[in-house]
Amino acid sequence: MKKIINDPADVVAESLAGLVAAHPSLVLDVANRVVSRAGGPRAGKVGLVSGGGAGHEPLHAGFVGVGMLDAAVNGEVFTSPVPDQILAGTRLADGGAGVLHIVKNYTGDVLNFEMAAELAAAETGAEVVSVVVDDDVAVQDSLYTAGRRGVGLTVLLEKIVGAAAEEGRDLAEVADLARHVIAQGRTMGLALTSCTTPASGQPTFDLGPDEIEVGVGIHGEPGRRRAAMMPASEMARTLLEPVLADLPAGGDPVIVFVNGLGGTPLIELYLLYNEVRTVLAEHAVTVARSLVGPYITSLDMAGASVTLLRADATVQALWDAPVNTPGLRWGA
Amino acid sequence: MKKIINDPADVVAESLAGLVAAHPSLVLDVANRVVSRAGGPRAGKVGLVSGGGAGHEPLHAGFVGVGMLDAAVNGEVFTSPVPDQILAGTRLADGGAGVLHIVKNYTGDVLNFEMAAELAAAETGAEVVSVVVDDDVAVQDSLYTAGRRGVGLTVLLEKIVGAAAEEGRDLAEVADLARHVIAQGRTMGLALTSCTTPASGQPTFDLGPDEIEVGVGIHGEPGRRRAAMMPASEMARTLLEPVLADLPAGGDPVIVFVNGLGGTPLIELYLLYNEVRTVLAEHAVTVARSLVGPYITSLDMAGASVTLLRADATVQALWDAPVNTPGLRWGA
Repeated sequence: MKKIINDPADVVAESLAGLVAAHPSLVLDVANRVVSRAGGPRAGKVGLVSGGGAGHEPLHAGFVGVGMLDAAVNGEVFTSPVPDQILAGTRLADGGAGVLHIVKNYTGDVLNFEMAAELAAAETGAEVVSVVVDDDVAVQDSLYTAGRRGVGLTVLLEKIVGAAAEEGRDLAEVADLARHVIAQGRTMGLALTSCTTPASGQPTFDLGPDEIEVGVGIHGEPGRRRAAMMPASEMARTLLEPVLADLPAGGDPVIVFVNGLGGTPLIELYLLYNEVRTVLAEHAVTVARSLVGPYITSLDMAGASVTLLRADATVQALWDAPVNTPGLRWGA
Repeated sequence: MKKIINDPADVVAESLAGLVAAHPSLVLDVANRVVSRAGGPRAGKVGLVSGGGAGHEPLHAGFVGVGMLDAAVNGEVFTSPVPDQILAGTRLADGGAGVLHIVKNYTGDVLNFEMAAELAAAETGAEVVSVVVDDDVAVQDSLYTAGRRGVGLTVLLEKIVGAAAEEGRDLAEVADLARHVIAQGRTMGLALTSCTTPASGQPTFDLGPDEIEVGVGIHGEPGRRRAAMMPASEMARTLLEPVLADLPAGGDPVIVFVNGLGGTPLIELYLLYNEVRTVLAEHAVTVARSLVGPYITSLDMAGASVTLLRADATVQALWDAPVNTPGLRWGA
């Protein structure tokens, strides 16, 4: 294993320290590994908390800031944070108008966020509502998941719901919007290589020199099948056909998100986006907005995922609203 | 070789097509592979043109937009564009106030940009001034270079000079500023793995499982030495000591740029930035601003570079000015 790290046990803490050093708009609760806005919660605004295992940077801590999250809770690499950490994050995000937990659908995350919500209600009286993202169409159940996994849609959800909370919508409205977005988005990914966790030092799974894993999860969980290497045009089709088959029908255009898994450079991601456009045109799907880059990664895994989200004019406007985070920033 | 591509010969054209499809603020001159602003040059503004071989994305085409470049000229992977392409880019950037060529110091780029500047003067009467970036302290001459190579400082330069041009400074002022920035910045990088060009399909150089290349170039050119794998804390020292030794003395704080070479994920880059801060504190160097991410890459190479730029209040203000490009975006 060759990585730019010190002791593998310190990777998450040291990387978070670097993140907040680079972005003075953020602060780090070192003990709980919670990144939150430097100014604290805005009174009267619904607080947005997300989190999960590390290894998916910039998700989640890189999405803390105006127009997106209030706090992100960081577990070890590919390991859910514990309830006490999430409770600390919930407090740091609580501006008195309730808190929304955005949870990716992995068993550990779901249980720990649930427990934290109960603790928060008991200890602080905070009203907490949870939404669970489960956009990955690849497999029904998986290594760490009952039901579908939560993957790329999480990025779009945090942006859109973040804008709504910033506008001053109340907790019920923000939670309804989150459920709406979750219902309207689907994702699938593929891996060209495995990732290597710092703790193990070994690739999580083996892939032959001419093989890809179609439908891979963001922790290296198995997908639908092994396939032979294929051109990007066929990769686009392979990812989009299951996504389109499962995407709610309707006339709304889509936000397209071509995501890099960590080891794949931008030159390839834009090339894939070009192929995605071709396939969508064949299916008469109109593209309203796009996002191309490594936003929800799997350490150093080479590969990509494609997310489609049906977006009406309201969702598009929330997408366009100003955002100021390390990972996404515009209009602010 | 596993990459998300089709025919290796089409990688650059197809990736650029994806870039402009994702960013409607840009247009592509397909024949000349020039990416420029959709609205054309702004009358009376100094035009900024850069370019070079592809494989360093988002540099340069991802830095076209308000507050940064007017046009970027794209060669094949790791291959300079030819003079006719650069001439086309110069025309697309010419708003009647002259054009600045920002050239990285590689022999092919320098010659081809020079020839294009002469062609532009002869054919259109445009006044063109060139500046050459040569910030890499690793080696004096290199595979494709007489003198030092141009690397990470190019990103900071394009941002700062882009802001000055947007403010309405004239060509002489913009060129003076560019030379000032070039004189004040230094970079060094290291590779954990080679890159693989699409055309060759093979790693450009061999590195053992426990080796790194210290001082690597962004095309995989040899650096100063092979070294054994080391912790990130030692990497930071290894990169910063030569940079600090060569950086102009003075009381100005620095803009710190920790750059990923394409295959290294953000979790490691922020960890490296944390170590860089420690070393700079030991040297009593104050950090004014920072940038962490993959902005000048070497295809899929794993590794990182560190750039320091001494920045007075004027340069800091230009750094903070609004920018709206695919690769860098804030305040706009």
